[in-house]
Amino acid sequence: MKRPYNFSAGPAALPQEVLEQAAAEMLDWHGSGMSVMEMSHRGREFMSIRDQAETDLRELLDVPSHYHVLFMQGGGIAENAIVPLNLSRGGTVDFVVTGGWSAKSYKEAKRYCRARVAASSEADGYTRIPAQWQLSERPSYVHVCTNETIHGVEFQELPDLKALGCDAPLVIDCSSHIASRPIDWSRVGLAFAGAQKNIGPAGLTLVIVREDLVGHALEICPSAFDYKTVAENHSMYNTPPTYAIYTAGLVFQWLKRQGGVAEMERRARAKAELLYGYIDASGWYVNKVDPTCRSRMNVPFFLPDDRLNEAFLAGAKERGLLQLKGHKSVGGMRASIYNAMPLEGVQALVDYMREFAARHG
Amino acid sequence: MKRPYNFSAGPAALPQEVLEQAAAEMLDWHGSGMSVMEMSHRGREFMSIRDQAETDLRELLDVPSHYHVLFMQGGGIAENAIVPLNLSRGGTVDFVVTGGWSAKSYKEAKRYCRARVAASSEADGYTRIPAQWQLSERPSYVHVCTNETIHGVEFQELPDLKALGCDAPLVIDCSSHIASRPIDWSRVGLAFAGAQKNIGPAGLTLVIVREDLVGHALEICPSAFDYKTVAENHSMYNTPPTYAIYTAGLVFQWLKRQGGVAEMERRARAKAELLYGYIDASGWYVNKVDPTCRSRMNVPFFLPDDRLNEAFLAGAKERGLLQLKGHKSVGGMRASIYNAMPLEGVQALVDYMREFAARHG
Repeated sequence: MKRPYNFSAGPAALPQEVLEQAAAEMLDWHGSGMSVMEMSHRGREFMSIRDQAETDLRELLDVPSHYHVLFMQGGGIAENAIVPLNLSRGGTVDFVVTGGWSAKSYKEAKRYCRARVAASSEADGYTRIPAQWQLSERPSYVHVCTNETIHGVEFQELPDLKALGCDAPLVIDCSSHIASRPIDWSRVGLAFAGAQKNIGPAGLTLVIVREDLVGHALEICPSAFDYKTVAENHSMYNTPPTYAIYTAGLVFQWLKRQGGVAEMERRARAKAELLYGYIDASGWYVNKVDPTCRSRMNVPFFLPDDRLNEAFLAGAKERGLLQLKGHKSVGGMRASIYNAMPLEGVQALVDYMREFAARHG
Repeated sequence: MKRPYNFSAGPAALPQEVLEQAAAEMLDWHGSGMSVMEMSHRGREFMSIRDQAETDLRELLDVPSHYHVLFMQGGGIAENAIVPLNLSRGGTVDFVVTGGWSAKSYKEAKRYCRARVAASSEADGYTRIPAQWQLSERPSYVHVCTNETIHGVEFQELPDLKALGCDAPLVIDCSSHIASRPIDWSRVGLAFAGAQKNIGPAGLTLVIVREDLVGHALEICPSAFDYKTVAENHSMYNTPPTYAIYTAGLVFQWLKRQGGVAEMERRARAKAELLYGYIDASGWYVNKVDPTCRSRMNVPFFLPDDRLNEAFLAGAKERGLLQLKGHKSVGGMRASIYNAMPLEGVQALVDYMREFAARHG
């Protein structure tokens, strides 16, 4: 069966092998007689699934042992509150605003701390990462979104706060490019990621946090979202999203079989070069982001005339190229080309784009 | 294929037909070429799934049109914070404590309001519903857990606060018996339920709330958990747990095919009568709960000697009777017999109990 290519920004395409395995095991996981959905989260079977998922994730991302791996609920939007509830200590927090997601994080944090914009590229329409950062004297932490899903802006290297004279921990929202490139943990205090882009189904949020940052939650932090409580209970304080953890675990196994994050990065480079290369060469389609910080995962692009958008989307769908419509705040098109998107899918998109441009150009 | 009978308290057994349909549709939902897991939550396909789930749930539970139906994340434990964040207005809230879950709700609410115990059966080991309630003058709301999963205590009728001279809205945590009996909405301001017992997979929480109670959240309430924000965005403010909503929707369709909540209640009565009837008649097994408030969903029971527990569980597993171990805070055994448990499963359990008692009695 030939499946269409799904360019959704999230929830997003999953590897076909993962879906096939999930379907095959749906009524009986490993001879247990139960679906994973039906297992007590505290039973031996599910505990082994959870433990394996954590082990594989630690291996894939090379997570140091003094970081907790937490499986939570609520997605990036809930973490916009949960991070300051846990890490701000009611003090000052610096935000580098590079697109819609970091702007949202900044706004939400204001409920819990003195949130400051240390740098912003809003005036440039979020097409680059600002060069000059005005960090506070002693912020509780510094927040960046390392891949802006909506605007298609990605940090090609993590900021080195120490080199900027800042001792505060760096918090990264890496929802939409986690597991597509290595993470330099020496620069990161906390990383969070909604699962529904590169990891698995919606409803699971990964939080990877350095041990010393845990245990300082504000009193108003709900127990279910207090990292200390979550860590002490191995993500079992509230019933975790068991089936989403299981599916994410299947994705981790798939990633390992493919060659891990290094191989994913190699493929991401190849896919991004193919698509941006064509867009720039076309002289017809436009991506507005500074080439030094273009996202390898989310590629927004525009046709010369918005009145062609509907025809473009309809023709794409006919060819099995799905969910290419841009985010409503930006318009145009967006191709999300996460780990599960093969190079052939990007090639099929480029072929279609070339054909469409020739017919309408 | 004969599947074992799974008595887990949650995550719990699902109807086999639901699992079969989920497996069959895993790689291609209704010719879309996508798994439900891969669909944008804002796309036409998933919106139709969400809308159908809400329509079916409203029909099944006869939810009046002036109540919002919200699909959220975090489970009952997160709602223990989210409800007071939304409804307490920082005032006084009364709790009727009838077991482990309402005790936990009371404790968590103290972060956000003046939480009071209006009545408690703790001194009776949570074996009954207290008769005398000392309600406050003007509480923001009154909280009860209408089925205590751990202690096996169930309200056979919802409290009528107006008859008690109280105008406050009633909040019910009905996680572990939702859809097993009708809800008298004239007595209820808000109902919440983690999905992982009677509805679907873990990671989805249903909140059904009267419209006038929404819009009064404390400023410290995270946006993702502000009922007003959730309602205005049709549960799409943060990415919802799409696959869990889909699975719950399959359960709702199954419930409708079975004859709806009235039929579920008839079956629940029959299953509970069979199991409690045998326990009481056995003179060997014991359930300590006052017969007027025994749960039809969760049946804790004890063997005369705890040293027999391991042998009981091992023999049960051999016969395909799974996850019968009692909650660690209570000990003994617990049979959870939710909607997806057929009468034959309860009969198989009773047959085994009889055999075990004859051998060890």
